[in-house]
This record gives sequence, structure tokens and C-alpha cells, in this order.
Amino acid sequence: MNANTFAIIGLGKMGLNLAIHATELGYNIVGYDPYAVSLPENSRLVLADSLADLAARLDGPRKIFIYIPAGKAIDDLIAQLMPLLQPGDIIVDGGNSYWGDSIRRAQTLREQGIHLVDCGTSGGVDGARNGACFMVGGETAAVNQLAGFLRAMAVPNGYTHTGGSGSGHFVKLVHNGIEFGMLQAIGEGMDLLSHYPEQLNISEILLTWNNGSVIRSWLVELMKRLYDEKQGFNVPSYVEDTGEVNWLVHDAMQMEVSVPVIAQSIMQLIASRDSEHTWARAVAMMRNGFGGHPFGPDEAIKYERKHGRVGGFPF
Amino acid sequence: MNANTFAIIGLGKMGLNLAIHATELGYNIVGYDPYAVSLPENSRLVLADSLADLAARLDGPRKIFIYIPAGKAIDDLIAQLMPLLQPGDIIVDGGNSYWGDSIRRAQTLREQGIHLVDCGTSGGVDGARNGACFMVGGETAAVNQLAGFLRAMAVPNGYTHTGGSGSGHFVKLVHNGIEFGMLQAIGEGMDLLSHYPEQLNISEILLTWNNGSVIRSWLVELMKRLYDEKQGFNVPSYVEDTGEVNWLVHDAMQMEVSVPVIAQSIMQLIASRDSEHTWARAVAMMRNGFGGHPFGPDEAIKYERKHGRVGGFPF
Repeated sequence: MNANTFAIIGLGKMGLNLAIHATELGYNIVGYDPYAVSLPENSRLVLADSLADLAARLDGPRKIFIYIPAGKAIDDLIAQLMPLLQPGDIIVDGGNSYWGDSIRRAQTLREQGIHLVDCGTSGGVDGARNGACFMVGGETAAVNQLAGFLRAMAVPNGYTHTGGSGSGHFVKLVHNGIEFGMLQAIGEGMDLLSHYPEQLNISEILLTWNNGSVIRSWLVELMKRLYDEKQGFNVPSYVEDTGEVNWLVHDAMQMEVSVPVIAQSIMQLIASRDSEHTWARAVAMMRNGFGGHPFGPDEAIKYERKHGRVGGFPF
Repeated sequence: MNANTFAIIGLGKMGLNLAIHATELGYNIVGYDPYAVSLPENSRLVLADSLADLAARLDGPRKIFIYIPAGKAIDDLIAQLMPLLQPGDIIVDGGNSYWGDSIRRAQTLREQGIHLVDCGTSGGVDGARNGACFMVGGETAAVNQLAGFLRAMAVPNGYTHTGGSGSGHFVKLVHNGIEFGMLQAIGEGMDLLSHYPEQLNISEILLTWNNGSVIRSWLVELMKRLYDEKQGFNVPSYVEDTGEVNWLVHDAMQMEVSVPVIAQSIMQLIASRDSEHTWARAVAMMRNGFGGHPFGPDEAIKYERKHGRVGGFPF
């Protein structure tokens, strides 16, 4: 075991694919997950039985990546690891922790000589397996010990040391906010295409948009792939999220930065989960009360909307 | 002059670059612009003296692209062209006309045997010069006479015949709506990065984001290029637009499709032009009236916001 040995704790979709990718690149990886992990055949990934076993298999300074959900689980895992570590060891939080938590944790660990590096990871499961994008915050002395490994695990130019502790997770969070805005903009575009009076070949339009247009992007490519796989938008109209971008909207309010589109994108995800539409019932009640507007669709209004009261609409 | 001859009227940024690109590909292009045009050296582009001259230089069926601003100018140009054309000739509107206008115009021209094809063009000036993206609506008989040329002028897979008249401009309009949402999301992200307490290397972050991340896209690439060129966000904070996406929001309301992020993106462009902030003055007046809140910044509130009344903010 040597400078080319790293540990990865949390062998879920991201952690496992990163571990496999790393072993393929020739790194020695010790993995640990409290749940059973099924490894691909001929995997060179070594599984530890426990955190103590994992720590024992690493020479110092240890470099331990963690890929588990944000929040209390991270604090608990760090608390379990601390008695097993020695000054100079490096913990790398590769998940989507809140950057403020990463600053706090790094300060606490620094008092005991342990480095915490916050490593925002993008590119999804495919990126983990074949080349990801890393935004890394932390002390230069610690980050420099990881840079070679992370550059190798990234696509070319897909690595940056963003600054001190917290900055990697902050930059990843801003990335996720932009992502939410892009997702919602593309989603609204799909809705508009679906409502055109002539049936459009959405798959071919997405292909065309991704070749030479201003909006060409990996998300447009992904939209086409999923549209083809599902033969249309044949999935539940319910969007879950893991809540990180909520932090960003809170940060934006604290920083006094106006982010209407990012905030609206979150509101739309939340709206997707709302089948009650209480707000619409409330509005309908007041409109009925003041204007006598009927409950439910108003066919007379629909007719006028379609046949030109507003004027100039071509269908 | 033969099937490989096309006319382009309107030799502005888009029209001229498309014309030059086409001549480089071996097409014969007759160009016309009412204003003086300075051609690059050794250009094979032939300039007509007038619309009549242009029409005379083309064998039938004529294929005449127009790249001029949307609106009345298109109707005027078509009116001038009509006496010069013969049944079977094809006018291609390559600009950003409203798709409803394109349907109306195509119907009118069809009565006189002339085809109008609506050809949404994306990719900007660079795309016009080196390979664009075309979304084409119109009758198959007419579109088929253009398809070879447009495929050659596009990047690979950057061409689609979207359907009947109007559909090309509609699909381009939806593209532009998505573009506005993406622009605003990226803009808000830049604002957030700029407000991080530590100074971040935004150029390097943009480079990293474009390599392996979920938001990798041509617009992120473009943002980095301009950020480097301007050495930061050193341009006026005023965004003009040419108004097309307004049509899309109107369409969305008519179609009863909810597009909050696209609509908000337009509102942000409009807000960028507002230095009066009358709305903010009005809100401040009412807040002063009901709560005694002072006019202008309130240092006590700023202190509380920074030092933890909300709690947990790490700087």
C-alpha cells in the first residue's frame, strides 16, 4: 500500500462506480459499505470488513473518500473514523454536503490534525464510471495529495481546486442550481412542443438542437436519450429532489443575490408533487365569490381563447 | 445557373456569413442588400443591384433566402418580390418571424403558386459561417428542393424538417425560450459565485464545469470565453432582446402551458433595463407606512442577517 492507495466509503451508485474506475486506472482501492455490495467479476476492488479494517489497510497519510448522503450521516461517519485516524490523514467528502457544514467540519478536524477536503462531484453515474468533474475545496497541502488521483479520475480539464474549505461544495451547489434552471427551461420547452397543433417529431428536434444550436448541451442529449427509451414522456409527472438547491436559495437570500429562475425551478419540482392544488381551489373560490366565475373549466372562455378574442392566434 | 444556385437577401451578420459559407462549399450565391456590403477578398459571392436583378439572375424554380428582421419588413419584401417571381419559386424566411405570421404568409403565397418555407436558424454568427442548425417548416415538395443545401450548410445532424408551414419557426421559438431560461440560470450562478466570501477563479470553474459536469453546454463555453475576453463581468448590466420570446409566452398562455421559468427569464431581461426601480420605491413606501421601516439600507438588519439571526450561516 502506497501513495496510490485510496479508500472509498459508501459504495452506492457514485462510490462504487468511482471505485471501479479507479481500479481500472491502476489505483489500489479499499472500499467499505455497511450494506452488502455486489462487485463486478474480476474486480480489483478490495472490500474492508469494518472501518477499523479499512483504516488498518491504509498507510499514512490515509486518503479516505466518503460518498454518502449529506447531513447527520456525515457527522456520524466522521465521529466513527476519528479514533482510527492519525494526524495528516485526509478525509474527502465527495457528496453534496452543505458547504457551511464542510467549513465547520474542517475547522473541527483541523484541531486534531486531520484534513477535511470538500470535493463536489458532477457527471452522474456515467461520469463516475468513465470520467467525472471535480470541484475541490480545502488546504493546498491536503488537496495537492489528491490532485493527481482526481485529475486521472476526471475528464481532461474536469478538475479544479476552487479555494479553501467549503468552496468546492459551494461551487458544486451553484452548479446544481444552474442545472435546475436548465432542467426546468428544457422541461417547459418540451411542454410547448407537445402542445403544437401539428404532431412534432420531438426526438428528431432534440437531435437537431444538439447539433449546431445555441442550446446544445449534455442535458439536451440526455433528454433525447430518455425520450427515445420511454417512447415519449411516459413516466410519472412527479419530480423528487434531494434538497440541496434549497440551501442555495437560502444562501442567495443571505447573500442578497436575486435568483428568481433557480428559486422558481425548485418551486416547480415541489409543484410536481402536489396533486391537491389547494392554491387553485382557493383562487377558484375567491373568483367565484367576486365575479361569479364557475368552478371547473369554462367552455365559453375556452372557445373565445381559441377563436380570437385575444386576436391573431393562428390555430 | 442551376439547382446549385441560391439567393440570399439581407447580408447582415447571419445572411453574409451564410452566403460566404455557401460559396466556400461550392454553391453559387446571388446576394442582395439595400445597404453597401463589404465582401471579403476573393469572395465568390455575386451581388445583385436590385431585387429585379436578383430575380433575373436565377433560373426557376428560384430559391430565395431572406435574412432580415421579423415583422412588417418581411411583408414589404415579399410584396416587392412577388411581381418578379413565377409559380414554383420558393421564398425561405430564415429569420425569427412569428410562426403564426409564417402560416398566414404561406397561405397567401400558396394561392399564387409560390412556396414560403420557414427556416429557423440557430448557432449564431459562428454557426452561419461554419455550420448552423436549421429547423424547417413547409410543404415537402418545396422543402425537398432545399434539403441538400441546408444539410450541407448545417453541422452533421443539424437539419430537421419539422412539419408544415410555421412549425420551423415555432420550433426555433421554443429553442429560443429554452435558451433564455438557460442564460438566466447561468447568469444567476455567476452572481452567486461572485458573492462567495472567498474570491473564486470563475474562468477556471467555467472550464471545469464544461468538462464532465451535468451543465456542460455551449453556453457555459461561451460564458468562459466572454469572461476571459472582458476580464470579468465588465460590460453594461443592460440586456436588450429582440422580443421573439415574448410571443412564446403569449403562445403559452393561449395553449394553456405553464412556462414560469421562460416567462421569468424575460422579466429579468426587462428588469435589467430598469434603473428607476419604481416597484421598489412603491414597496418601500408601503413598508414605511405600515411598519416604520426606514428608507434605504437598514444597517441593523444587515448586521442581524450576517451574524446569525437566521442562524447557521457560515460567514
